[in-house]
Amino acid sequence: MTGAPSPDPGRPVRPTRLDPSIAARLKRDENGLFAAVAQQYDTGEVLMVGWMDDEALHLTLTTGRCTYWSRSRREYWVKGDTSGHTQKVVSVALDCDGDAVLVKVDQAGAACHTGDRTCFDAGALTVTS
Amino acid sequence: MTGAPSPDPGRPVRPTRLDPSIAARLKRDENGLFAAVAQQYDTGEVLMVGWMDDEALHLTLTTGRCTYWSRSRREYWVKGDTSGHTQKVVSVALDCDGDAVLVKVDQAGAACHTGDRTCFDAGALTVTS
Repeated sequence: MTGAPSPDPGRPVRPTRLDPSIAARLKRDENGLFAAVAQQYDTGEVLMVGWMDDEALHLTLTTGRCTYWSRSRREYWVKGDTSGHTQKVVSVALDCDGDAVLVKVDQAGAACHTGDRTCFDAGALTVTS
Repeated sequence: MTGAPSPDPGRPVRPTRLDPSIAARLKRDENGLFAAVAQQYDTGEVLMVGWMDDEALHLTLTTGRCTYWSRSRREYWVKGDTSGHTQKVVSVALDCDGDAVLVKVDQAGAACHTGDRTCFDAGALTVTS
């Protein structure tokens, strides 16, 4: 909405092996990314929100390990590779307009880099209505 | 990562009444937006992912009705205003790096415009690992 348009909006910006029939359903942002919500498969806890591109989704679907694109480091990030706090993939679903995926996982330990179980544990905001 | 930088990355792009102490914790994209995950407060279902700017978050915190920014219509969208499928706000939490909020809601009827309970119901992808 602000700034100049990217040269290829809505297209992958990195090489990918993702199934073309899935890729055709994705609606990516200017950086080729879409949101990924990780949820603990049995308790229903929303653990974190990360970002994926086509290849991160391909890796998530085929390796059993939830894999994101790190916007700050600009690299693929296999959750738990450094922390040990892995996310074993149970199921993946794309939303109705293709700009978000829900990944049900089995989270080992803390999902948050702060040590909290979820990235939302410390962030409650006051609802005044 | 691609395209020209926006003139004011990470700042609100529309007027807002959001508490400045909350606004200071937000990490917005190039369009002044962050992700909002709506979850049914009692069953734990992830209903949908939408987008908020500062003012949408302010309205969500103060009106009791979950309010998004529609990227396609470029306007505020009080969930259920046209469909009747309202989202009554139960709690709101900001994530650890300020680029996503989790809104626990009481969803009336279907969250998805297709009539499905959640926006992920029809989108299962095959996990091959």
